[in-house]
Amino acid sequence: AFYRRIFKENNVDPSSIKSLDNFNKIPFTTKQHLRQAYPLGIICVPKEKIVRIQMSGGTTGQPVIVPYTRKDVEQWKKTMLRAFYIAEITSKDVIQITPAFGLWNGGFGFHFAADAIDAFVIPIGAGNTRNQVRFMVDFGTTVLCATASYPLRIAEVASEMGYDPSELPVQKMLLGAEPWSDEMRKQIERTFDAKTFDIPGLTEMGGVGTVGFECPMRNGLHMWEDQYIVEIVDPETGEVVDDGEEGEIVYTSLTREAMPLIRYRSGEVSAVKYRERSECGIEHMTIKRIRGRTDDMIIYRGVKFYPYDVEQILASYGIKHYKIEVKKDIKIVFEGENGILPEIAKDIREYLGFNPKLEALPFGSLERFEGKAKRLVRG
Amino acid sequence: AFYRRIFKENNVDPSSIKSLDNFNKIPFTTKQHLRQAYPLGIICVPKEKIVRIQMSGGTTGQPVIVPYTRKDVEQWKKTMLRAFYIAEITSKDVIQITPAFGLWNGGFGFHFAADAIDAFVIPIGAGNTRNQVRFMVDFGTTVLCATASYPLRIAEVASEMGYDPSELPVQKMLLGAEPWSDEMRKQIERTFDAKTFDIPGLTEMGGVGTVGFECPMRNGLHMWEDQYIVEIVDPETGEVVDDGEEGEIVYTSLTREAMPLIRYRSGEVSAVKYRERSECGIEHMTIKRIRGRTDDMIIYRGVKFYPYDVEQILASYGIKHYKIEVKKDIKIVFEGENGILPEIAKDIREYLGFNPKLEALPFGSLERFEGKAKRLVRG
Repeated sequence: AFYRRIFKENNVDPSSIKSLDNFNKIPFTTKQHLRQAYPLGIICVPKEKIVRIQMSGGTTGQPVIVPYTRKDVEQWKKTMLRAFYIAEITSKDVIQITPAFGLWNGGFGFHFAADAIDAFVIPIGAGNTRNQVRFMVDFGTTVLCATASYPLRIAEVASEMGYDPSELPVQKMLLGAEPWSDEMRKQIERTFDAKTFDIPGLTEMGGVGTVGFECPMRNGLHMWEDQYIVEIVDPETGEVVDDGEEGEIVYTSLTREAMPLIRYRSGEVSAVKYRERSECGIEHMTIKRIRGRTDDMIIYRGVKFYPYDVEQILASYGIKHYKIEVKKDIKIVFEGENGILPEIAKDIREYLGFNPKLEALPFGSLERFEGKAKRLVRG
Repeated sequence: AFYRRIFKENNVDPSSIKSLDNFNKIPFTTKQHLRQAYPLGIICVPKEKIVRIQMSGGTTGQPVIVPYTRKDVEQWKKTMLRAFYIAEITSKDVIQITPAFGLWNGGFGFHFAADAIDAFVIPIGAGNTRNQVRFMVDFGTTVLCATASYPLRIAEVASEMGYDPSELPVQKMLLGAEPWSDEMRKQIERTFDAKTFDIPGLTEMGGVGTVGFECPMRNGLHMWEDQYIVEIVDPETGEVVDDGEEGEIVYTSLTREAMPLIRYRSGEVSAVKYRERSECGIEHMTIKRIRGRTDDMIIYRGVKFYPYDVEQILASYGIKHYKIEVKKDIKIVFEGENGILPEIAKDIREYLGFNPKLEALPFGSLERFEGKAKRLVRG
């Protein structure tokens, strides 16, 4: 009923969609549609078949509810198990799950798979970083699941507690829920002497770990084409862009039952890297790591960029904490030495093409985050 | 190794314990022992067999860690499924789980069973009572899992939001984690037009739902004797008391693998009601609902009582929110009319045998709780 209405509103005759060639005639689904469908206006199965819900957003405005059938939970677990398999996480591992449990999908997503392989699970959830560090030490955590920026906070607290983060037992980290730059990755890996894996996933497609994973060769994100059709479109025109060109990821779920979205605009920005079999042996298409969200794009004097790009430059100077204030002008505030200001300014001019205002603050001045970091402030 | 040491410290030769007749020669295990064993000093299986941990306490002092093997998780699920079976909770139900998820055992305990029967699970966890109410309405919650005092808070917030709590779709509530009086139960059931079930359980024995349940006939708590040996002892002498006499519950787990505690002093106060088959058909022993914890016992001029006893009297006057301040004297503060003060004073004198100071406050003056209520303040 939901899609019948959307097709009608867009004057699309579903019977005209006969092959993948005119797949792009199908109208997009947006977050707005899902908000309007609250609470369960969009389900494609009887309510009795629903076994759980998770939620996206909800702090402001209408929440988006994602319902699951038993088969959907199995699909979630299965795709997460692929990630575990690729990262060589086994029943011998001690897995500390730091994303929150509850309606947000992070905690349970990792939990379903960690529980399925009989690993030693520490279901600690969000917050209380001192306890997180203590448990890592006391139980010998080998795998940390977290939002991408949380390890930086953990490293700080561990140091305050007298631990060298590189001596903590953690060997692997599955990090996601927000864009994080390659330079930030290098910092995290150096700090902890651990290997990090980028784990994409969005609640609307079933949660963390469902859409793809990164292999240890780091060629990009391998996207599970047996589960989702992945397109990259121009955010303005909605046209599919050429491989290699950047655009917004649009997902169509092939295997989900309760809410199988068609051409869902994710807001995530990426580009197709290649479609052939990867060196690691994975036969699915590969896209670039996510550079940002369309919402986070900053347009300043004709230059388009994402917080990711600024982070990439700052992190190369060892900077871990920063904030981008976008008002009439753009100001970048970071924790670090005054001495490196001219060099950073030069890099930003050179790579991003604008002259930022820069401010160096003493260490510890900026807010720390235990969940997703809020680094972009619009004025 | 853990029990070898305890036996030695108590000069008990384990080989002398040959039958249940001298079972009471075995020394007690206490919370203090578990604290000292942090993190995993007490496990009886190799660390590789542990699949998760839960935690008790930890806000003050050394936390108590409860480790689980796969079989222990199955035991937890199985005992909770007994409760669901007795309460006639089925896959058709919409189960809203309001205790916190994470290391505290409440959320996951309900979750494992609710998930296993393919019910519609709302894994919302603790807090945000407005959202709790909203979700009850929007998803048609039929079963609410909560700490015993939380429904009172939910009722208040529902009223503020314009809902009559009795018109909410909730039909059954599984309430536990704190002692709650029969009078309070009557209030909750009247307020919501729902049936409540008392669900005991403590982290050290595997979490909520493991040790027993109450059947709809409400003869008391049926304790799973195929899973635990349940004794009631005199808290001072440690001697087993006669059936019918009140004392501290001591548990011995028969089926748990990772941490099978022997004669664990729970701190819970109850009495054996009867040992024969109950009218409902359950063949296990039956104890009184838990009246309090030994820690919460108040001794005032030779009179021993529990907050439960005060609650029982206050609730019979429709009072839902109260606080007991124990300093040199005892003062009971509650939300209600001044006019009923003399009657309450008379009842307390009559039933509990002391003259309390009483203070009536306007509605909304006292703190509200989303987890366990803190009603006893020692000064």
